[in-house]
This record gives sequence, C-alpha cells and structure tokens, in this order.
Amino acid sequence: MSSSNEQTTGRPSSAHRSSAAGESAVTVLGLGPMGQALAGAFLDAGIRTTVWNRTPGKDRELVERGATSAATAEEAVAAGELTVVCVVNYDAADAVLRRDAVTEALKGRTVVNLSADTPARARDTADWAARHGIHYLDGAIMTPTPTIGTPDAVFLHSGPLEPYEQHLPVLRALGGTHTHLGTEISRAAAYDVALLDIFWTASAGYAHALAVARAEGISGRELAPFAKGIAEILPPLFEEWADDVDDGTFSGETNPLTSGASSMAHIVHASEEHGIDAGVMRAAEGWARRTIGLGHGTDGLSRIAEVLGRH
Amino acid sequence: MSSSNEQTTGRPSSAHRSSAAGESAVTVLGLGPMGQALAGAFLDAGIRTTVWNRTPGKDRELVERGATSAATAEEAVAAGELTVVCVVNYDAADAVLRRDAVTEALKGRTVVNLSADTPARARDTADWAARHGIHYLDGAIMTPTPTIGTPDAVFLHSGPLEPYEQHLPVLRALGGTHTHLGTEISRAAAYDVALLDIFWTASAGYAHALAVARAEGISGRELAPFAKGIAEILPPLFEEWADDVDDGTFSGETNPLTSGASSMAHIVHASEEHGIDAGVMRAAEGWARRTIGLGHGTDGLSRIAEVLGRH
Ligand SMILES: NC(=O)c1ccc[n+]([C@@H]2O[C@H](COP(=O)([O-])OP(=O)(O)OC[C@H]3O[C@@H](n4cnc5c(N)ncnc54)[C@H](OP(=O)(O)O)[C@@H]3O)[C@@H](O)[C@H]2O)c1
Ligand SMILES: NC(=O)c1ccc[n+]([C@@H]2O[C@H](COP(=O)([O-])OP(=O)(O)OC[C@H]3O[C@@H](n4cnc5c(N)ncnc54)[C@H](OP(=O)(O)O)[C@@H]3O)[C@@H](O)[C@H]2O)c1
Repeated sequence: MSSSNEQTTGRPSSAHRSSAAGESAVTVLGLGPMGQALAGAFLDAGIRTTVWNRTPGKDRELVERGATSAATAEEAVAAGELTVVCVVNYDAADAVLRRDAVTEALKGRTVVNLSADTPARARDTADWAARHGIHYLDGAIMTPTPTIGTPDAVFLHSGPLEPYEQHLPVLRALGGTHTHLGTEISRAAAYDVALLDIFWTASAGYAHALAVARAEGISGRELAPFAKGIAEILPPLFEEWADDVDDGTFSGETNPLTSGASSMAHIVHASEEHGIDAGVMRAAEGWARRTIGLGHGTDGLSRIAEVLGRH
Repeated sequence: MSSSNEQTTGRPSSAHRSSAAGESAVTVLGLGPMGQALAGAFLDAGIRTTVWNRTPGKDRELVERGATSAATAEEAVAAGELTVVCVVNYDAADAVLRRDAVTEALKGRTVVNLSADTPARARDTADWAARHGIHYLDGAIMTPTPTIGTPDAVFLHSGPLEPYEQHLPVLRALGGTHTHLGTEISRAAAYDVALLDIFWTASAGYAHALAVARAEGISGRELAPFAKGIAEILPPLFEEWADDVDDGTFSGETNPLTSGASSMAHIVHASEEHGIDAGVMRAAEGWARRTIGLGHGTDGLSRIAEVLGRH
C-alpha cells in the first residue's frame, strides 16, 4: 500500500500568498482554537473568509479582521466553493454537515475535513459525501495552533486528486507543508491516529514525570531543560526503530528490552511510593514483560511493535 | 529543595582529555552496552582502566584496546581509587558490591554508581557505604551509548562534593555535560526516574503507533519522518507545561483537555479495531477523563500533572 507523496511547501510571506489566492473564497466551520487559527491565516492571506460556529460569539475577533459571520452553517457553506471543517471530532462534524439544509447547500461543492477522528469515520464520511454529490477530502493538522500560517505548520491530506489540486492554492494560505498521502480517503486519518498516539502518550508521560518530580522536590522548571534533552534523543531512535519493524530486525545490542523493563519497574515503584497512579507505565511495562516472555529480551524496544501487531 | 547546579562541560578532544587525567586509574564494574561504552571512553582518554563483568568474555575488545581484565570484582576495585558501577539496577549492584571481599576492598575508596534505580535505593546504598567507610556518589546517564565520550552525553550526579570534585577530571573523560544536582544522594535518581518516565512512555507510545500504522498499511519508514516532526514539537510544550505546574496556571486556551481526550478515544478505537492492545492509551485517557471529571476540561494537559499529584 504505497502512498503518492506530493509534498508542497508553503509560501513564506503572506503578501506572496494573497497574490496567489486573493480571488478565492473559503468557509470555515468550527471556531475552536484551531478553527480560529485557520480562519485567521486565510484572512491574513487576503482570502474572502466566511465563518460559523455552533456556539455564537467566537467569531468576534475574526469579523474585526474582515471575516463574514454567517448566521447558519448552510448560509456559510453557500458563500464559496470550499468549506473547511475543524471541530472536535466526526460526531461533531456530522452534527454540523449532515443536516438536510447543509447537505443540500454543499452539493457540487468541496469539503475539507480537518477534524481528527479514526480512518473508519473518514471512510463513512466519504460515503455520505458521494451519496450527496459532495467532493470530499480528508485531512489532519499535525502541529499546534501557533504554527498555523507559518512555515512550521504540517498538514496531511487524502482523497481525490482533482478537488485537492483545485483548492491547494487556497489551502497553502495556511502555511507550512501540505502532503497528499494518497487517494484512499482514510490515509490522512490513519497517519493522524498513529502520530497523535505518539504525541498524547509522550505528553501523558511528561505530565506523570512532572508529578513524580514534584513529589521528589524537583520543580517543573528544574526538570524542563533535561526533559527537552530527552525529547531531543527521540528522533534518531524513532528512525532506527522504524527501520527495525520494516526489516524485521530488532537489535537490542545497545539497549536491550530487559534493561528497559527494569527501568520501567523503578518508575512504577517510585511513582506509587508517592501515591501517584502509574497506570500508563504499568501498561507499558506489561508490553515489555510480555515481549520478553515471548523470548525477545535481548531485542530492542522496537520488538514491542511487532508483538503488539501479532494475531 | 533547591539543587546546587554545578554544570561542567566535557572536553571536546580526547588528546586534551588524556593530558588532564592521564595519571589516573579507574575501575568499571559491569560491561553491558553502557559499561563497555564507559570503559571505552576512559581508555580513549588514556586513563588506566580495569574492568570486570559477572559473565566473563565481555571484556575482550576492551582488553585489546588496553584495559586490564580483573578475575574478580574485589581485585578490580583494588586497582584504583575510583570505581564506576554500571549494571542493570541496584539488585545487581548490591550483588556485586555487597560481598564481604568487595566491601572490604572498597574501604576508603570512591564508588560512583551509574546504574539506574529509585531514589530510595540510592539512599539505601549510601547508608551501606557510610557503614563501611566508602565514599559514595550516585549518578545517572541520560543519553544512549553512542553519545558516551562525545559532547552529546548527559550525566547527572549527586552526593558529597569532595569526592565528586576529586574525581571529576576522570569522569570528564566520559564527555558531554556533568551536572551535580546537590548533596542529597537521591537527587540524581529522582531526576533519572522522572526523565526515564518520559523516555520509556514516549518510546512505548511510538512502538504502539508503529503497530497501528502497519495495521493501516503504513510502513515504519513512511511514518518516521512525521513521527520526528511530532518529537520536534514537544520541547516548547514541555517548557510551557513545566511553567504551568510551577505557577498553578493550566491554560488550555490553545488545546483544551476535552479535545485531547477525544483524540485519545479515537486512538483506542482505531487500535482495538485492529485487535491491537491499547492499554497505555486507555490509561492515559483515564487520566484525562478523571481530570475533566474534576472540572478541568478547559485546562490544558498540564493539569493532569497537578491532579496526579493530589492526595
Ligand atoms: N488545538 C490544537 O493544537 C490542534 C492541533 C492539531 C489538530 N487539532 C484538531 O483540530 C480540531 C479542532 O480542535 P480545536 O483545538 O479547535 O478544539 P476542540 O475543542 O477540539 O474543538 C472545538 C470545536 O468543536 C466544536 N464542536 C464540538 N462539539 C460540537 C458539536 N456537537 N456540534 C458542533 N460543533 C461542535 C466547538 O463548537 P462550540 O464552540 O460550539 O463548542 C468548537 O468549534 C480537533 O479535531 C483537534 O484534534 C487541534
Ligand atoms: N544502554 C543505554 O542506552 C543506557 C542509557 C542510559 C542509562 N543506561 C543504564 O545503564 C545501566 C546499564 O545498562 P546497559 O545498557 O549496560 O545494559 P543492562 O542490560 O541494563 O545491564 C547489563 C549489565 O548488568 C549486569 N548484571 C545484571 N544482573 C546482574 C547481577 N545480578 N549481578 C551482576 N551483574 C549483573 C550484566 O552482567 P552480565 O553480563 O553478567 O549479565 C551487565 O554487565 C542500566 O541501569 C541502564 O538503565 C543505559
């Protein structure tokens, strides 16, 4: 299952951007922190932007910056060819899009859904769109709100190439890199789930580490510089372990899983000695112990990925 | 509980290093991947190095490079003033150090224990050392084996300043930065536990992400560049969340915990739909749900650290 990678680099200056997309119009549905950031970037690029949010009042600043506030979602989507949806998940996206008046207004138009959810929900939404003559693209945003409109933003897309290429000039106003991962509609959601898995697991681990550190009398600011050091050693290891799972070689030569399991046990003990729940690390240690039990104690951590995927 | 930070930067060239520590001698007990890397760095710096490992044969390459192989641990520690211990944990360190012949040979000498374990075990080992007239320093290594002897290595130390300062010229042969975190013996282990918590949780999350990605037809090599992107967005967030817990402000303005909990639920579903255990993310989602249940849904993820630490 290869993905057609078609990475396009965002334009660095908003003046440059506005000249490319100045004639265009876009609708943004959903004005949480991310929806507001997206609408703001479209406005900065000089694109005519119509906004709507379930709870009114969140568009105030955007309207001051030139956005058009729509009273209803159907009115909003009727304002242009392209609608970007960014709400909490696909239950929320369905609540907005799958009302008759909105579905009707979207006929012949294009929806880019940048809300996060599972690959199965992306497929289901594509089916709904096909039944109603709506062009549907699925996408995911891999960077925080302050990156939007800057070169640091990362967007993933999947779905039919024709509407993607048609609307890419407008989407480029969001800055950063846009990667089309393939025509299979669920591709962006599949990457999103895997990448958010890393993000939220690491973040939960850091929250736990802060709690343990403070119980040991170490402040957040004392821990932070060393924590950043830990984050910095991850990228080369991520690459190494990706090669391991692709090649089926799981070298633990420099860091055997038995050593990791021992460290995990210390963390559980040190945490629980302070009455701090260690559920996440207990579950991680369980994966390591199970992998060791299957005879892979001298392999590296990447072997866990292979064992988790066994059926 | 402030820590006296006394960071010292490693010397960049081994020629430079050997001139500083060339007259010295060091003993390394434990020749796993890390013990071998440490002994190798001492040898590269021209320091007379005696090595011993429970299972014989692991010193072959080191002996070729000039190390002296000792037949017993007591013989090894008798060879010099400074013994560096690097075994899997303190059960293993005890098995090596707390034999009468070894304890006797260590009297008046200095032990630097670079094995990982809990703060409580560090205190217990310091008590044992004090009872036997042994100078005891506790330490932790925060970077992988290939960094040893290079500027990228990170060492944490705690314990009495006098033996630390006496042996620092030799320890500098290991490269990188050496930070003395305070005279409280458990300090290095406390940092170690918190930092390894981040490392192993993030690593387990990545292993799980690789398993989910592959079940979705995404190879490790396809995921890796984006996974590195995720690792790169962590450092500034780590700093922000450290400030949050220190200041008791938990802003979720740009990324509310309710949004994170929703993402975590997608990850659990997408994983379990493929029959892949999602225990780590289930536990993390539990922390998020509990924090939301306590009324903190509009706060950011850092609020989890505060809730975990409540009693
Ligand atoms: N914030 C980030 O850093 C970030 C980064 C990458 C990706 N994302 C993704 O971007 C999406 C939006 O995130 P966000 O940060 O803006 O905050 P969020 O809390 O995930 O989403 C808030 C938005 O969802 C709407 N919403 C929730 N339930 C709804 C429903 N039943 N019907 C209609 N609208 C509903 C909210 O409307 P109301 O105002 O009416 O409640 C609001 O517009 C999420 O999928 C998130 O995973 C966010
Ligand atoms: N590898 C890394 O990247 C890394 C990074 C930072 C910190 N560390 C820490 O460094 C320490 C050593 O790690 P490592 O990578 O060298 O591998 P390890 O697998 O953690 O430790 C292997 C060493 O422990 C010894 N050992 C185990 N049980 C023993 C016992 N009961 N009695 C005597 N010796 C025993 C082994 O001896 P045998 O050969 O006889 O089994 C071998 O010398 C650990 O605490 C680890 O957390 C490692």
